[in-house]
Amino acid sequence: MTKRITMAAATVGHAEGGTPLNAFDNALLAAGIGNINLVKISSILPPDVPVVDLPKIKPGALIPTAFAAISGDIPGERLAAAVGYAVPDDPAKNGVIMEFHGHGTRAEAEQAIQAMLEEAFRVRGEPIREMKVVAIEHTVERVGCALAAMTLLGEEDLV
Amino acid sequence: MTKRITMAAATVGHAEGGTPLNAFDNALLAAGIGNINLVKISSILPPDVPVVDLPKIKPGALIPTAFAAISGDIPGERLAAAVGYAVPDDPAKNGVIMEFHGHGTRAEAEQAIQAMLEEAFRVRGEPIREMKVVAIEHTVERVGCALAAMTLLGEEDLV
Amino acid sequence: MTKRITMAAATVGHAEGGTPLNAFDNALLAAGIGNINLVKISSILPPDVPVVDLPKIKPGALIPTAFAAISGDIPGERLAAAVGYAVPDDPAKNGVIMEFHGHGTRAEAEQAIQAMLEEAFRVRGEPIREMKVVAIEHTVERVGCALAAMTLLGEEDLV
Repeated sequence: MTKRITMAAATVGHAEGGTPLNAFDNALLAAGIGNINLVKISSILPPDVPVVDLPKIKPGALIPTAFAAISGDIPGERLAAAVGYAVPDDPAKNGVIMEFHGHGTRAEAEQAIQAMLEEAFRVRGEPIREMKVVAIEHTVERVGCALAAMTLLGEEDLV
Repeated sequence: MTKRITMAAATVGHAEGGTPLNAFDNALLAAGIGNINLVKISSILPPDVPVVDLPKIKPGALIPTAFAAISGDIPGERLAAAVGYAVPDDPAKNGVIMEFHGHGTRAEAEQAIQAMLEEAFRVRGEPIREMKVVAIEHTVERVGCALAAMTLLGEEDLV
Repeated sequence: MTKRITMAAATVGHAEGGTPLNAFDNALLAAGIGNINLVKISSILPPDVPVVDLPKIKPGALIPTAFAAISGDIPGERLAAAVGYAVPDDPAKNGVIMEFHGHGTRAEAEQAIQAMLEEAFRVRGEPIREMKVVAIEHTVERVGCALAAMTLLGEEDLV
């Protein structure tokens, strides 16, 4: 936990799989984070950490990640996951990350995140300088998973 | 995970929010840990680590934390969360942290933790030198959350 | 998260307890990992990390661990947990860890893991060089727990 976080990256993925855990694994691969170890966090973007495009991460690296995932095995079921962040005007203050998963559409997931981020900043008394949400939906064929993740990265994690 | 843990601090919080995740975020803010990243652990107090009052922690810091939280959206529903720790006579041996969440009162949550800690020390064959429990209850208005947490901290995490 | 992972070790345990959390604690003790802090990971074996017999770990250490646990309180109920890993031919590529918990037998849990690992390597397009699964079952008397875990360790974690 001594790693210096110097960047963050959001990603989404969805996939089918033979089991719920394989669908999750396949969705992670689709999202570009299938060969790293996610360590679940609740869910703050440290001050002054830029959000970048997902870089190539060392296989097996331990990556603090805020994520939401949902699996389902009812054919035709629609799964949605989203993650978003907002950062305050004051660069000395932290941003907030929110995750959402549920049954519904990508647009509904995005709206849910946006409302959660707005509340999070209202209660903190901070104006939002920048907000971004990424979301995904998946319609289950046999066993499916939708996931959205925000990784916190340091230089040492990159290939 | 190479951080040296030099202190631990317990805290509790409860709050309402617009969504379960916002209620959780607001309860974290009420508990004084709303701007850090909790990394969930199961749930040992390392040897010779004093439990202190919650210090000011750097925003965004990754903090190993044993915690229990419960959200609910049934008006009038009573939510309770508690965390407690006990340490053995032998300072070379570790303490144990227990978490509880459920529907009920603060007193019930405290009793549950106490019984769990007593069993944990009985099975380890260690006498308890010191035990402390903190608990909280919340009566739901619209969407509420009660949470209790024990953070493991190093000097580098402090402001 | 800057620890260098130099070995991994799998273990299983099962136990009764006064509460589900105590049964989990007791199962961890039975597995030899009851006095450390598990940090849950999803679930990659880093490249070139040998799997060894579970060494003695420092009490309170923060250990990234892929694990599955199931508790139950229906007398006679059969609980099973398993963890397995597979590594590819190419030593520069990571292995995969899979966890399973459910109601059923140890043999069923083992088969589930094996099928999940085979799918994980099929989708990665990698042949499996080595695969191993450990599993456990527990028949509930009053409150029981079965768990299986794969720990990722560095030299600094050892006694």
